[in-house]
Amino acid sequence: MTGSDSSQTQNRFPAGRLAFPHRDLTGIGQLERHEIFYLLDQAEQWVELNRQSAKHAGLLGGMTIINAFFENSTRTLLSFEIAGKRLGADVVNMHAAQSSVKKGETLIDTAITLNAMRADAIVIRHGSSGATQLIADKVDCPVLNAGDGQHEHPTQALLDALALRHKLKERGESGEDFTGMTITICGDILHSRVARSNILCLQALGAKVRVCAPPALVPSGIEAVGVEVFHNFDAALSGTDVVMMLRLQSERMSGQFIPSEREYHHLYGLTKARLQSAAPDAIVMHPGPMNRGVEIDSEVADLLDRSIITQQVEMGVAIRMACLDILTRSARGVEGWV
Amino acid sequence: MTGSDSSQTQNRFPAGRLAFPHRDLTGIGQLERHEIFYLLDQAEQWVELNRQSAKHAGLLGGMTIINAFFENSTRTLLSFEIAGKRLGADVVNMHAAQSSVKKGETLIDTAITLNAMRADAIVIRHGSSGATQLIADKVDCPVLNAGDGQHEHPTQALLDALALRHKLKERGESGEDFTGMTITICGDILHSRVARSNILCLQALGAKVRVCAPPALVPSGIEAVGVEVFHNFDAALSGTDVVMMLRLQSERMSGQFIPSEREYHHLYGLTKARLQSAAPDAIVMHPGPMNRGVEIDSEVADLLDRSIITQQVEMGVAIRMACLDILTRSARGVEGWV
Amino acid sequence: MTGSDSSQTQNRFPAGRLAFPHRDLTGIGQLERHEIFYLLDQAEQWVELNRQSAKHAGLLGGMTIINAFFENSTRTLLSFEIAGKRLGADVVNMHAAQSSVKKGETLIDTAITLNAMRADAIVIRHGSSGATQLIADKVDCPVLNAGDGQHEHPTQALLDALALRHKLKERGESGEDFTGMTITICGDILHSRVARSNILCLQALGAKVRVCAPPALVPSGIEAVGVEVFHNFDAALSGTDVVMMLRLQSERMSGQFIPSEREYHHLYGLTKARLQSAAPDAIVMHPGPMNRGVEIDSEVADLLDRSIITQQVEMGVAIRMACLDILTRSARGVEGWV
Repeated sequence: MTGSDSSQTQNRFPAGRLAFPHRDLTGIGQLERHEIFYLLDQAEQWVELNRQSAKHAGLLGGMTIINAFFENSTRTLLSFEIAGKRLGADVVNMHAAQSSVKKGETLIDTAITLNAMRADAIVIRHGSSGATQLIADKVDCPVLNAGDGQHEHPTQALLDALALRHKLKERGESGEDFTGMTITICGDILHSRVARSNILCLQALGAKVRVCAPPALVPSGIEAVGVEVFHNFDAALSGTDVVMMLRLQSERMSGQFIPSEREYHHLYGLTKARLQSAAPDAIVMHPGPMNRGVEIDSEVADLLDRSIITQQVEMGVAIRMACLDILTRSARGVEGWV
Repeated sequence: MTGSDSSQTQNRFPAGRLAFPHRDLTGIGQLERHEIFYLLDQAEQWVELNRQSAKHAGLLGGMTIINAFFENSTRTLLSFEIAGKRLGADVVNMHAAQSSVKKGETLIDTAITLNAMRADAIVIRHGSSGATQLIADKVDCPVLNAGDGQHEHPTQALLDALALRHKLKERGESGEDFTGMTITICGDILHSRVARSNILCLQALGAKVRVCAPPALVPSGIEAVGVEVFHNFDAALSGTDVVMMLRLQSERMSGQFIPSEREYHHLYGLTKARLQSAAPDAIVMHPGPMNRGVEIDSEVADLLDRSIITQQVEMGVAIRMACLDILTRSARGVEGWV
Repeated sequence: MTGSDSSQTQNRFPAGRLAFPHRDLTGIGQLERHEIFYLLDQAEQWVELNRQSAKHAGLLGGMTIINAFFENSTRTLLSFEIAGKRLGADVVNMHAAQSSVKKGETLIDTAITLNAMRADAIVIRHGSSGATQLIADKVDCPVLNAGDGQHEHPTQALLDALALRHKLKERGESGEDFTGMTITICGDILHSRVARSNILCLQALGAKVRVCAPPALVPSGIEAVGVEVFHNFDAALSGTDVVMMLRLQSERMSGQFIPSEREYHHLYGLTKARLQSAAPDAIVMHPGPMNRGVEIDSEVADLLDRSIITQQVEMGVAIRMACLDILTRSARGVEGWV
């Protein structure tokens, strides 16, 4: 069944491999470089089809996808729900905040329950690092991590990479990978699964990654994974091709030094003036939702041709469609990397 | 493509016009009389098909409709959700009370996010007047107002008109429009978007509209739009062909004179005795949910052949199907007024 | 249309009957023995198809099922939602906790509203006994009870019977019905609709039922329905073929003698040691969600080949598919017992 419509995608996968070698997507850390490429390449077709409002072929018709969100996240849930429905799946949302979890059920029992209902894929968002893997170990179907504690948020990193690649191609730069580029992630690196997944993904794609935050918000020893650490934002921006701002999430920072929003903006807010320190035409990213006037100024967030924040949202649906498609192929009897 | 099945509907549209001239439905105030007729006429087919439990043809198959409800409204949400699903669309509900809005995201950023996810239509319910227009200005797809602040609730007015027209036809009266009829709206006119949309709609269809409320609950200067103001309910009812009761919403009346429920019922509750003041066979309406025993007595609400409260709910689904159909035609490549 | 694919199922229905004689499923109490068999037999096909992840034929395509849950229940809601979607219906969830009910609407008005929206089936979960019947009396479509107060939870009893029958067949025992078996239900019998529905169902299928609980948690006079009452768990277990544990729901027991969890576990918790008192290979059941370490120990709950708790969840989807299928046949023009 291999290659029947391989012309659609660039398959850089080793010729011998006939299937995506992972049942689950729990983190970027599990993926090899060519696997990341494959996911990005596959997502391209969905970007195009979504823009055309093209009817999708009911690829996952008859399949049941459960979005089990133990943490509220309107945006990520919407994105996964739309992705699943566009592929023709039956999508069921489980709002775990109102759920059995409250009644004292263990996470493992919840996993076993979802599995017994014969889900074809389970998307998990959970406040505890490793919750996705815990569930994946107990079920028979693919599990996708939609953010677990301070661990990973792999589809966010993939959509960020896809949005960046799109922008580079639009500008006529190669955009095949990010070799030679310097990307600065600024914000609460310590608690951010977005930062963690992005560091892994961007490095795998060849970028030099800098992180910038107050000392209390940088994990100790992070230099060991090859990132450069800055506490001064202007210094971090110097020569930076891409600035990725993180959302200030005061609720995750209890017990630590918490700067006021005003102080944070003064030191680490991305203003138009400060953006001058970066490379000419440096690209601005933010995973959303933004605190305008705190970590990013409106005049930067809305900069035409520099900010790709809206494109990140768009690429999110496409990436999730690609992940759901690829991970359910085995259950659908599609064996090849088509 | 015009006219292929025009026999189904009465098209009173000017012959030269080939498309519904509005991308969005933000209020009755934007509609001309013949446009209101067109929406009502189009809804008739759905009334009929819904009654037959007929399978609909997947008219909106592959389209994504987002119901973004920033205010809770079980009934209106259900009605829009059922309408969208009956037309074959993928319907996604965004409960904004649990959403990014709480995280400080601006309404405009939410709009941009929904747009980036490539919604084919967005239905908005919001506590602030003008929120729907604000969102409509930022997105590429049709936006439908499901109630915004004290501004408008256009599908409610349309369903009310449809239910009334149905009832008149059932009685053998012409029902083409409401010329010569007197309709009294009783309740909190000041805060009610239902009142506002209904005044505009009923007047456009030829009715003489009276409003009746305590002085503090009538907007000053409302006579200028051609309604008659009453503070005495019996006087208002005299000669009235239709009585439209509004729900007493104490929660919207903070800071004003708030009558007790008992006092309100005494002065403005629709009782069977009071209904005698109206025209013989006067029709009773209420947008629901009712406070039985407060603004309306059960023996009036349940009056066979007089109360059309249940029909209003039924017409709601049909009106929303018509609106979703008509507003997505351009995206579906349907150009004519079929 | 009778008999066209009757080979699939064992039809033990009286030959003269051409349709399932109930519009609604409000309780096991309404069903005759052969009707219970019919529901179980019909569910078998869905168990098989769900295991194969087979695409279902859109049996209920175009139909609207409303899940109106006035009580939170993630598990039961998920199960009904998946069941409805697998059959191709449009499934709409109404979370009544956030609904008009809060605004003072009566249950009957809610029923009338759902009916006016032309639902093809309504699934009700409500905190008050009899709420399902009250709604069924007001609507034109089939109503399914998903648990009402302390009255009944019929699909739970049916899924329990199906799971038990499956297990017996797996073990090579006949499993046609439960004649000759002794089944002990242990827990808060007084407040449990699960207990009530199970007693009716298991007795109809031939089992001898024992209940075991502290005296304050057994309804007085329950012996009259033919169950044996025990207050000592070891005595109850003696000779028991199946132990059905109920969830300890402290929230339902206000105002009564409430044992501490520790005390409850000591007296009525199912431990491995205690299970020795039962018949060899006695089967363990629990409707979930479990309080591990309270009413049941993990080493019992997870006993391979003894505990069928996971199978109960699986059978739940199949039973709900069977009920939705059978009860909507008349509306779909399917007249026979196929």
